[in-house]
Amino acid sequence: MSITKNEIKFIKSLSQKKYRLQEQLFIVEGVKGILEFLKSDFKLHQLFTTKAIFDVHSTLISEAELKRISSLKSPNTALAIFKIPVSKSISENGLIMALDDVRDPGNLGTIIRLCDWFGIDQLLCSQATVDCFNQKVVQATMGSLTRVRVVYLDLEPFLKQCSLPVYGTFMDGESIYKTQFPKEGVIVMGNEANGISSQIEANVDHRIGIPRFGKTKVTESLNVATAAAIILSAFKG
Amino acid sequence: MSITKNEIKFIKSLSQKKYRLQEQLFIVEGVKGILEFLKSDFKLHQLFTTKAIFDVHSTLISEAELKRISSLKSPNTALAIFKIPVSKSISENGLIMALDDVRDPGNLGTIIRLCDWFGIDQLLCSQATVDCFNQKVVQATMGSLTRVRVVYLDLEPFLKQCSLPVYGTFMDGESIYKTQFPKEGVIVMGNEANGISSQIEANVDHRIGIPRFGKTKVTESLNVATAAAIILSAFKG
Repeated sequence: MSITKNEIKFIKSLSQKKYRLQEQLFIVEGVKGILEFLKSDFKLHQLFTTKAIFDVHSTLISEAELKRISSLKSPNTALAIFKIPVSKSISENGLIMALDDVRDPGNLGTIIRLCDWFGIDQLLCSQATVDCFNQKVVQATMGSLTRVRVVYLDLEPFLKQCSLPVYGTFMDGESIYKTQFPKEGVIVMGNEANGISSQIEANVDHRIGIPRFGKTKVTESLNVATAAAIILSAFKG
Repeated sequence: MSITKNEIKFIKSLSQKKYRLQEQLFIVEGVKGILEFLKSDFKLHQLFTTKAIFDVHSTLISEAELKRISSLKSPNTALAIFKIPVSKSISENGLIMALDDVRDPGNLGTIIRLCDWFGIDQLLCSQATVDCFNQKVVQATMGSLTRVRVVYLDLEPFLKQCSLPVYGTFMDGESIYKTQFPKEGVIVMGNEANGISSQIEANVDHRIGIPRFGKTKVTESLNVATAAAIILSAFKG
């Protein structure tokens, strides 16, 4: 055995937010993702691999062992443990995206990739937003997480004192196709089921929305990640 | 037992495309979705419910029975079987979206909801695109499937003879922020891994793309559903 029972137990514990916070560690799986994190400012803690293909210290394990520590249906060659970076301060310039309780890991992953694509390097998350070091989020971001700074904070006090204009997305907001967007500002996206909460809404300067072109009056809203894509494109285009 | 073993077996078989095609039936779960399909042109085949809340003929079953026929982790009150409508012809006007082998049910579901939102009522799918009556697609579309006409066809011959301009999305296409979009046309989106195939590309009149604003030159592309959101917004906005 090149991996001990205790190590397996420890790695598995990192699938829970509680233990990630306690240990300040998170997991990245797959060669491509691991290489992106190795190239970045993130610090490696431990690397397990079935093939000796990395030029950093690693522990060779068998396919069967990888299967025991992986959370993927089809594990891909390696699993790495990285250190959670110390939280950086927010710099109030440029475009900033802020999430008010986005709960779905897939949505957060898509939004991090969108921020990366559109050159938004600061993503603020309310404390109740899903953890960006959740394994599903890490796998969905495909390395974008190394290029977007994600900061968890109490959103309300931040917005209250923020000097940038705050934009919030609402079903009845002003059409994004009629809005003139600034180069700097905060864009708030709300929770999947409830949208932006009333405390946060009170700190929004500009209510914007994506008009519906369909004939019916059904108020089914767009998914939050899809809406974020359209809003970011409107801001940058 | 208000539901027979044979009925359970039959309902379960409809989770496979082969049996859906053979029987020309598909499943909708949950009160809200079922009500939307009942209000639409879709024809009901059979309805199983744990509560007598529908004003159409239904079979009352127990929660335990619903659990046995449902494909959801938390079944919601009712399961209905609807008839797959006979395939309608394509009308060559307005904006039409076309999918070249989109494989993921979640992506197709998101794209159908986007079409509904942006008033695109015709969605063409290559034969290798995931079936829109797949249960995951039906659950993800939340009723939008009743408002968007989805047609499966051989995309290449259709595009060859099509009189509308054909737009295709490529990593190196002309920026959507610099393109003048017409009111009528076909927008082709490609497969998740490979993009638009070369046979289809040969029939594209206008190569468009979403410019990347991020600093790095990493060529991680946007997810196809996210890209579709941005492109549709550019066409309609």
